[in-house]
Amino acid sequence: MAPRPTPADKFSFGLWTVGWQARDPFGDATRPELDAVEAVHRLAELGAYGITFHDDDLVPFGADAATRDARLTRFRKALDETGLVVPMVTTNLFTHPVFKDGGFTSNDRDVRRYALRKVLRNVDLAAQLGARTFVMWGGREGAEYDLAKDVRSALDRYREAVDLLCQYVVDSGYDLRFAIEPKPNEPRGDILLPTVGHALAFISTLAHPELVGLNPEVGHEQMAGLNFAHGIAQALWQGKLFHIDLNGQRGIKYDQDLVFGHGDLLNAFALVDLLEHGGPGGGRAYDGPRHFDYKPSRTEDMTGVWASAEANMRTYLLLKERAAAFRADPEVAEALAASKVTDLATPTLNPGESYADLLADRSAFEEFDPDAAGAKGFGFVRLNQLAVEHLLGAR
Amino acid sequence: MAPRPTPADKFSFGLWTVGWQARDPFGDATRPELDAVEAVHRLAELGAYGITFHDDDLVPFGADAATRDARLTRFRKALDETGLVVPMVTTNLFTHPVFKDGGFTSNDRDVRRYALRKVLRNVDLAAQLGARTFVMWGGREGAEYDLAKDVRSALDRYREAVDLLCQYVVDSGYDLRFAIEPKPNEPRGDILLPTVGHALAFISTLAHPELVGLNPEVGHEQMAGLNFAHGIAQALWQGKLFHIDLNGQRGIKYDQDLVFGHGDLLNAFALVDLLEHGGPGGGRAYDGPRHFDYKPSRTEDMTGVWASAEANMRTYLLLKERAAAFRADPEVAEALAASKVTDLATPTLNPGESYADLLADRSAFEEFDPDAAGAKGFGFVRLNQLAVEHLLGAR
Amino acid sequence: MAPRPTPADKFSFGLWTVGWQARDPFGDATRPELDAVEAVHRLAELGAYGITFHDDDLVPFGADAATRDARLTRFRKALDETGLVVPMVTTNLFTHPVFKDGGFTSNDRDVRRYALRKVLRNVDLAAQLGARTFVMWGGREGAEYDLAKDVRSALDRYREAVDLLCQYVVDSGYDLRFAIEPKPNEPRGDILLPTVGHALAFISTLAHPELVGLNPEVGHEQMAGLNFAHGIAQALWQGKLFHIDLNGQRGIKYDQDLVFGHGDLLNAFALVDLLEHGGPGGGRAYDGPRHFDYKPSRTEDMTGVWASAEANMRTYLLLKERAAAFRADPEVAEALAASKVTDLATPTLNPGESYADLLADRSAFEEFDPDAAGAKGFGFVRLNQLAVEHLLGAR
Amino acid sequence: MAPRPTPADKFSFGLWTVGWQARDPFGDATRPELDAVEAVHRLAELGAYGITFHDDDLVPFGADAATRDARLTRFRKALDETGLVVPMVTTNLFTHPVFKDGGFTSNDRDVRRYALRKVLRNVDLAAQLGARTFVMWGGREGAEYDLAKDVRSALDRYREAVDLLCQYVVDSGYDLRFAIEPKPNEPRGDILLPTVGHALAFISTLAHPELVGLNPEVGHEQMAGLNFAHGIAQALWQGKLFHIDLNGQRGIKYDQDLVFGHGDLLNAFALVDLLEHGGPGGGRAYDGPRHFDYKPSRTEDMTGVWASAEANMRTYLLLKERAAAFRADPEVAEALAASKVTDLATPTLNPGESYADLLADRSAFEEFDPDAAGAKGFGFVRLNQLAVEHLLGAR
Repeated sequence: MAPRPTPADKFSFGLWTVGWQARDPFGDATRPELDAVEAVHRLAELGAYGITFHDDDLVPFGADAATRDARLTRFRKALDETGLVVPMVTTNLFTHPVFKDGGFTSNDRDVRRYALRKVLRNVDLAAQLGARTFVMWGGREGAEYDLAKDVRSALDRYREAVDLLCQYVVDSGYDLRFAIEPKPNEPRGDILLPTVGHALAFISTLAHPELVGLNPEVGHEQMAGLNFAHGIAQALWQGKLFHIDLNGQRGIKYDQDLVFGHGDLLNAFALVDLLEHGGPGGGRAYDGPRHFDYKPSRTEDMTGVWASAEANMRTYLLLKERAAAFRADPEVAEALAASKVTDLATPTLNPGESYADLLADRSAFEEFDPDAAGAKGFGFVRLNQLAVEHLLGAR
Repeated sequence: MAPRPTPADKFSFGLWTVGWQARDPFGDATRPELDAVEAVHRLAELGAYGITFHDDDLVPFGADAATRDARLTRFRKALDETGLVVPMVTTNLFTHPVFKDGGFTSNDRDVRRYALRKVLRNVDLAAQLGARTFVMWGGREGAEYDLAKDVRSALDRYREAVDLLCQYVVDSGYDLRFAIEPKPNEPRGDILLPTVGHALAFISTLAHPELVGLNPEVGHEQMAGLNFAHGIAQALWQGKLFHIDLNGQRGIKYDQDLVFGHGDLLNAFALVDLLEHGGPGGGRAYDGPRHFDYKPSRTEDMTGVWASAEANMRTYLLLKERAAAFRADPEVAEALAASKVTDLATPTLNPGESYADLLADRSAFEEFDPDAAGAKGFGFVRLNQLAVEHLLGAR
Repeated sequence: MAPRPTPADKFSFGLWTVGWQARDPFGDATRPELDAVEAVHRLAELGAYGITFHDDDLVPFGADAATRDARLTRFRKALDETGLVVPMVTTNLFTHPVFKDGGFTSNDRDVRRYALRKVLRNVDLAAQLGARTFVMWGGREGAEYDLAKDVRSALDRYREAVDLLCQYVVDSGYDLRFAIEPKPNEPRGDILLPTVGHALAFISTLAHPELVGLNPEVGHEQMAGLNFAHGIAQALWQGKLFHIDLNGQRGIKYDQDLVFGHGDLLNAFALVDLLEHGGPGGGRAYDGPRHFDYKPSRTEDMTGVWASAEANMRTYLLLKERAAAFRADPEVAEALAASKVTDLATPTLNPGESYADLLADRSAFEEFDPDAAGAKGFGFVRLNQLAVEHLLGAR
Repeated sequence: MAPRPTPADKFSFGLWTVGWQARDPFGDATRPELDAVEAVHRLAELGAYGITFHDDDLVPFGADAATRDARLTRFRKALDETGLVVPMVTTNLFTHPVFKDGGFTSNDRDVRRYALRKVLRNVDLAAQLGARTFVMWGGREGAEYDLAKDVRSALDRYREAVDLLCQYVVDSGYDLRFAIEPKPNEPRGDILLPTVGHALAFISTLAHPELVGLNPEVGHEQMAGLNFAHGIAQALWQGKLFHIDLNGQRGIKYDQDLVFGHGDLLNAFALVDLLEHGGPGGGRAYDGPRHFDYKPSRTEDMTGVWASAEANMRTYLLLKERAAAFRADPEVAEALAASKVTDLATPTLNPGESYADLLADRSAFEEFDPDAAGAKGFGFVRLNQLAVEHLLGAR
């Protein structure tokens, strides 16, 4: 049986996920609007720990101050009643036509200034609600046509924006960090900072790189055919996994936002193993929210919405159990050793060895027999089969 | 008519390109071995400027010192006779079975040490031949199975290797820089540092980041569905376009290595425009070799090989001509202005403006009319159509 | 200069293309509603020959009889005034929530019956307007989850529906044929009849296969990484190219619906060459409408919409000119012969030759020298380079 | 625990799978040649039922008659000793340079004649060995360049070849059927008959369609992003699943040929469910060999080769167990009913109902409430979650 989620599992959901009304490029909404307060209560009942939102999810775009205050007051009350927290907040720079060529990197400077103001306003709200992470998904920052966007200027403008936001957070004394969410395409033909790698590279050029990390999403990397668990490993390696978006994607196609695990199940298994058992000594490698950014399929009614919310958490917990059993299995330990997986943590050089020492080591080259070394098998298929059988609950 | 290439165009070819015997995963060689000396002479006749190679292209793997010396002497003589230069050298860490799990990041530590030695040896040769760039394609650094490779340890080992090589170059006084060549997959299921972005991010963690840049390849980024011209723009923006591999790829599939321009022609046009006219003031944005890393199709004989070599250069020069005409066209200038493409170079903030100033600017938010701004068209389709018509030679 | 389109070019547009208000999965509409009458007049001015529509494009879903009649009367009047024809009509079985699991193959039988009725009604309208083709795009016929759809039953139901519709057309004496439009995915995770091939195969099982053909769309095949010109060739070969949807797509990603030629330009060139010069003796291989099913980018205002409509036609005509020059070039003719492209039309067997004769022909096997034959080059790269240079207007 | 395979499970392997020496486009062989006789014995020990081969796997290309006879005699002896059968034979028309532009559809007519002879010879051998299926993978039938191959002539030649082969089989009285194996690309840029659909369509045009079916391969369809279980369902629906190639593929990239289940595990589960429980009444939908066409990873030695062979069978049997439990679970039955999955088998028309009757049924349209029908949820996510939990062995 699947274990039941509790707040200690740190599962969080975007308000726009369970609240998605299922409008898609070829179809109208199939579900009614969901009240944010109801969302808070239902998620709390299901065992979630947090809820997140875009400004426009909670308060309609362009609402007046009174509406805004009323919405926020009701929402805070629901949080207080349920104990749900708001670990992350984000700003919508993509729905309104004004952002059709982007926010921070629109060719239209007035739009860029407006976008900055919209985000600054929402940073204050994030801080007030106690959020520790502010996500930036630049889905409209991009182009369909190669000569219609000066990518180097776009990167300049993106950096200008992020540097300003970081300075604002520093000066305001907010305990808040930014997390960039990469995506390769959709809704733009090509999006700026298309992968985990491009975003990590960009961050290295910032004035406050320590304040900026990533919010990678399963489906976004998989839309480029990239291995999500590998991308997360590099983000962890660079100390930049600030937040994570879990969902499911079935290969290179439009952004599916399926339930976590309803896509590439083997990669989901490797991911959970990495997050839960990948730390030094085998502990948690990532301690932040396990955030589901998915869409309940358009075929579902509200009953299906809540079932899908539950499914995300159940699958995660099942994979966590399977990963624990995999790590505890002596045959797995033996197979990992036989495949020398753990040997890769050993430096290539001996302690204190210089390149001169290496050059002098005849056993490393002159007396090394590459044919003999090349004939040895690594046993990777056997190791993977052990993983598959653990995943299937067959061991 | 296509202009004829000259050494001033800085076209270079890998010895392994025209020398490819056309063995593929399902087929035997269709062409005889090509003598390196003949390759030098033929490429010089065609107007090329440089030739590059892997150690094993020039000297068979495991050859004795006498063979090695003889091969090198003949090769240098051909260079002297033709004036061809060797702007780049690289090391083969992928063909021999010993590298089946990688070189710098093989799970087998003995292999890692051997790989380092093989590269160090070749770095010396590169410096002796006057190469300024040493390319590292880590095609075997990767995995098929997610749990068979500890990616963070692999990145540690990769960094260890690159740091050692940089120190060696510094201490040796070589005028040589390293260029990492990313690839998402093939021959491994997933390759470490799969895109331009991941490699740029990795470089930011090195002991000598100034010595390490990129050698992006058209087809490799396109195998992940990424926009190559965008990737090159980010590499230029980060000052890391040390070398470039030009070829053709028709979408997300196996690595095709077609002739440059025989793949995504629109993106090739944008790329040449960026390289040739993308510098400040419209000059060259990249001054290094235009290196063709392609494979003459397996259906071709040696006549076809040389025709394909020529085709790479002709297409590049034609695209350069088309790009020059595009940039010189007043209607294009007007369309670029109408689309505000050039406005993106203007900072979002006014000179000296702080976030406090921006927050105080009511025209930026309180008095900004997003609906009116959102109704304005950018004219990107018209701009792209102008590009297409220039590309087609129709204007 | 690009030639100007005339009705003789048979260019047609979907009303939903220029009328697209640019709502996408992440954004609201950026353009106002377009009056169908204005669309007719503007397209006629631009040189188009036809306009097509879904029932719900012209008459809002669920409109009463009076509204319907009024809309139709105004529309017919515009057609009469401009001379524009309606060569094709189609039915929307995807926007309304009722079709969220499909129309003809919804798991809900009541929906299936309703869908059939909606189509039957629209078939009458198509016939009244003189349309010769009725397109069926089954974008919602599919599934996200493998076990949620019995694909064999779905094919049964799809066949049941098409057989009924054919019988209705036969009995009604309508001069109307059906054209199935395949698509691999989006908006469903996997769509029934995902490619040209699957639809051709399905048609071979129908009661009236002569009444059913294809309406392939450039982007749809390219979303599966398939060669569109190859797919069209097979459709022609099977006598099933009843209609065609021209647009642009940049590789395997979401459905982009760019302007024709703004995607894979080389494949667009081959396609136009096939349509215009691929018939026996080099004539037209396809004589129906050149129908553009594209979306003016969301960044454009109405000026951009009309510029994009024009761009489709200009690009087609330019490619047609380039293809004519390619076919007329004696060097191309020589290269085609050298590559034996034309020899493939010669049967493998001699006239009247049986397999027994072939088995008795020692020159075909026992005395055939595969090594010598395998050493001959085909010259395909040279031929392709000639195509590229013609495409670039450089010859 | 995974159940042990027995011959009753009908598992078969290609001789070229366990015998693959792991040469790839970037690397030399890592494993020694495998004696066919040893392969037979080892596979029999592991519980396999059959072995298959290309002519050149068993007898080297161009071997003289004595060598050929000796090889065949030894092989038959091994079959007799072990009881292993040869359910399928195929011909290699791709490795030798002579086939570089294809076999049946090479632009070179002499090659086409030679290819036919090579296949005819092997058809005799297949019949002698008791094979019931003759597979044709046309991996070289294709092109890299759109204008270098006349696809319609290629289809003519392919049909000419298949028609001749069928006539030969009929006249020879062989109990042998042909199975075409589609693949979208690799080693050619685009391959003729790229998907299950295109091949089914082609078959419908043959002189003896009853003798020709399909041999679909998991990875080949997935290389085009297509749903393999859906493709198999259409092949079954058209009565054309003559043989099947099981393996694993991780998305759209080069042909990986991983162990079955080491790719898209959810789709593998749906596939096994379809094959084993998809027949009318829930029985086997396909009764032929479960044939593994995979490659033991290049990192493996011979121990790893045999472990990988075993892994294919274990995974299949585990998935079969999981699928049986899924089908037996009353909650699944209830969920399938709630999702109306089974209702799709009910015809849309009532027994004897004509379109006139349907048109007269006001409840189908005039009195049907699409909004109410569209508001009902299908419960597909819940159903899929049940599948995932059964797959994980968690129910």
